[in-house]
Amino acid sequence: MTAQQFDAVDIIRAKRDGRELTQAEIDWVINAYTHDYVADYQMAALNMAILLNGMNRTEISHWTAAMIASGERMNFDALSRPTADKHSTGGVGDKITLPLAPLVAVFDVAVPQLSGRGLGHTGGTLDKLEAIAGWRAALSNEEIMDQLENVAAVICQAGSGLAPADRKLYALRDVTGTVEAIPLIASSIMSKKIAEGTSALVLDVKVGSGAFMKNEENARQLAQTMVDLGKDAGVNTVALLTDMSTPLGLTVGNALEVRESIEVLQGGGPQDVVDLTVALAHEMLVGAGRATDIDDIRAALSDGRAMDKWRAMIAAQGGDNDAPLPVAKEQHVITAPRSGYLSSLDAMAVGVSSWRLGAGRARKEDQVQAGAGIELHAKPGDKITEGQPLMTLHTDTPERFERAIAIAQEGFDISDDVVTGLPDLVIDRIV
Amino acid sequence: MTAQQFDAVDIIRAKRDGRELTQAEIDWVINAYTHDYVADYQMAALNMAILLNGMNRTEISHWTAAMIASGERMNFDALSRPTADKHSTGGVGDKITLPLAPLVAVFDVAVPQLSGRGLGHTGGTLDKLEAIAGWRAALSNEEIMDQLENVAAVICQAGSGLAPADRKLYALRDVTGTVEAIPLIASSIMSKKIAEGTSALVLDVKVGSGAFMKNEENARQLAQTMVDLGKDAGVNTVALLTDMSTPLGLTVGNALEVRESIEVLQGGGPQDVVDLTVALAHEMLVGAGRATDIDDIRAALSDGRAMDKWRAMIAAQGGDNDAPLPVAKEQHVITAPRSGYLSSLDAMAVGVSSWRLGAGRARKEDQVQAGAGIELHAKPGDKITEGQPLMTLHTDTPERFERAIAIAQEGFDISDDVVTGLPDLVIDRIV
Repeated sequence: MTAQQFDAVDIIRAKRDGRELTQAEIDWVINAYTHDYVADYQMAALNMAILLNGMNRTEISHWTAAMIASGERMNFDALSRPTADKHSTGGVGDKITLPLAPLVAVFDVAVPQLSGRGLGHTGGTLDKLEAIAGWRAALSNEEIMDQLENVAAVICQAGSGLAPADRKLYALRDVTGTVEAIPLIASSIMSKKIAEGTSALVLDVKVGSGAFMKNEENARQLAQTMVDLGKDAGVNTVALLTDMSTPLGLTVGNALEVRESIEVLQGGGPQDVVDLTVALAHEMLVGAGRATDIDDIRAALSDGRAMDKWRAMIAAQGGDNDAPLPVAKEQHVITAPRSGYLSSLDAMAVGVSSWRLGAGRARKEDQVQAGAGIELHAKPGDKITEGQPLMTLHTDTPERFERAIAIAQEGFDISDDVVTGLPDLVIDRIV
Repeated sequence: MTAQQFDAVDIIRAKRDGRELTQAEIDWVINAYTHDYVADYQMAALNMAILLNGMNRTEISHWTAAMIASGERMNFDALSRPTADKHSTGGVGDKITLPLAPLVAVFDVAVPQLSGRGLGHTGGTLDKLEAIAGWRAALSNEEIMDQLENVAAVICQAGSGLAPADRKLYALRDVTGTVEAIPLIASSIMSKKIAEGTSALVLDVKVGSGAFMKNEENARQLAQTMVDLGKDAGVNTVALLTDMSTPLGLTVGNALEVRESIEVLQGGGPQDVVDLTVALAHEMLVGAGRATDIDDIRAALSDGRAMDKWRAMIAAQGGDNDAPLPVAKEQHVITAPRSGYLSSLDAMAVGVSSWRLGAGRARKEDQVQAGAGIELHAKPGDKITEGQPLMTLHTDTPERFERAIAIAQEGFDISDDVVTGLPDLVIDRIV
């Protein structure tokens, strides 16, 4: 607790009236909120004022630092290798963390991927890995350090000790219409990543219908804000702005995405998943001071080195690499209503459909179905013949089909002409 | 409860993004908040979005109607005389309700003044009257009706049944920096006044340092919004825009203001208090269909008719008209540091000083001191001689003097020149 005392209402009014908040005010309000001295309703009003009136770079930096100070910090200095971390703002079919962590570890860089569960239409990395029999998400700090030393890659649950203010704040924003504030999104993500203690960080900022940020301008602003925050805190940070107008890869859902990730680690898999995995690995290795030729990175996917790391990483957390992945009990195929070219396949529609099938949760306490989700049989630009399968929907609970099919069928367009002008996978690199 | 269901977050987001709320959305959110289904933190975020993005006349009208619908409505149709009510937005030394209610009652118009207690630097009408031995603020609806029939004037506590949504909302706005939103202020005041069932309403909208509204433009906007709301609900409504840059009259504090009110009812008292009382009485009588000559209204103050009504009104609520008023234990006199003309006497500084002396409360559960407050010995424009008393500060608890004196001494200016350009007491009339 800082010595200086403030009044929550004065701070709310200051931001409401467009004034810059001081470091002392920010330190006080975050600390007081963490300790329940500032009430949820006061923080909700402040969040809305921040959303509508903004914060400048100095305020965001102080806000982030105050959230970091609310909890413990990790320190990887004792490791024998540098660390690099990746964060994605979330997208449909975004399983990149799964092949990426072992791939980067191949090149002697430690990858501490502290991840979360999914809420809403985007899946969570931990939910996906929990489709593997025996795999355990919760590790102690000591187990994380051991695994980083022995295997180099770890994907696990973020401890509750990191930036507890953020956890409390995020839950509040979720129910008060204040999620979409760039200063709050940026400080939420970066407080955890900085507290985690990585030396290099690559941000995958998604833009498009299936992403948090629907338009490129906002996504750029978020990316730049986070890169600035990282640099201000001494973390070597870079962001890639990547397309999320259509799902990544050909699978959406937990076990389905693990299967596709394993294909990538076997040297196969969809081109977009491979390309993005390699691009992000390249950035992480550069950031960690282990600059590596792109071709060598690609080779590690096809020659089994990344697969060996994956198996070691899964086994270290109790996962059975040889157990079959869960398969949903029921399938439904959506076919093409006419011939032509697939001109769009909307990420949000596919994400919501998969969620409705049981792959995601509506409330924190919900269980996800490991086998539920969607397989895509065509991607934007593909030539289509009437009656051919476009998607296969999977669920254990067939009563979910009706609402899932309804939205999936709204989620694509077929045109008579060859499709041009599809967005690039990597739109820009922001430093 | 309306049949249609909404999600609080959708409504918050709509207003956050500048969209007009529908009547169904407003009905739902007010009803759901009253019944604790929408949480305080959600309403706080919505209030801040309303404060920053506004509501149009239609939305404000629906918002007010929804608050009225949250509780009971009173009905004065059974009375043998028309009703007229007055509401002041609150100012320092504003004791006008005390002489006004009996004065209007002289002319056979019923005055149901449902009032509140003070919070912050402006006093509350009930706190003032409670300085009178035996006087009772809480009356049943039946007692109110009887007193309106028998005496015609009643000043009492507003029942908890009127617009309960507003009471809950006001308490929340007070602690979330969202008091100063014109749509919310207007609907808060007008929901209670419309639910109260008066046929004519005169609004005294204060403008200046000691008022809610510091500048004339905002005060005008608030006045017009409330007049429109009143008319839309079938209440004959008019507003006077009046000056609150300096305190009203020569006393601030509970018993001190009762004493000054009695002076006015005895045909004396400060000119500004008399003039405003007469101006508001005139408007109330016109609104109630009992248009009366200004001279006749003034005569009722000096010939004892209003005093008789006052004594009957106080006695009907158990008050002892002959008991001495409480006097504070300690006094401190602030004198003029030099000769000249009093060019300003800041209402806010005097109000806060009086509050610090114990005349007001910082939290709802605080007790007020009946004798605490400030007597003014000069008003803006007056010629001043060095060393003459400017104010006498009263309190039962002398440890309060230091902070009260500090702000009072900052609250006035003395100039060498004759003071010109002081604001008019009544700035405008808004219909």
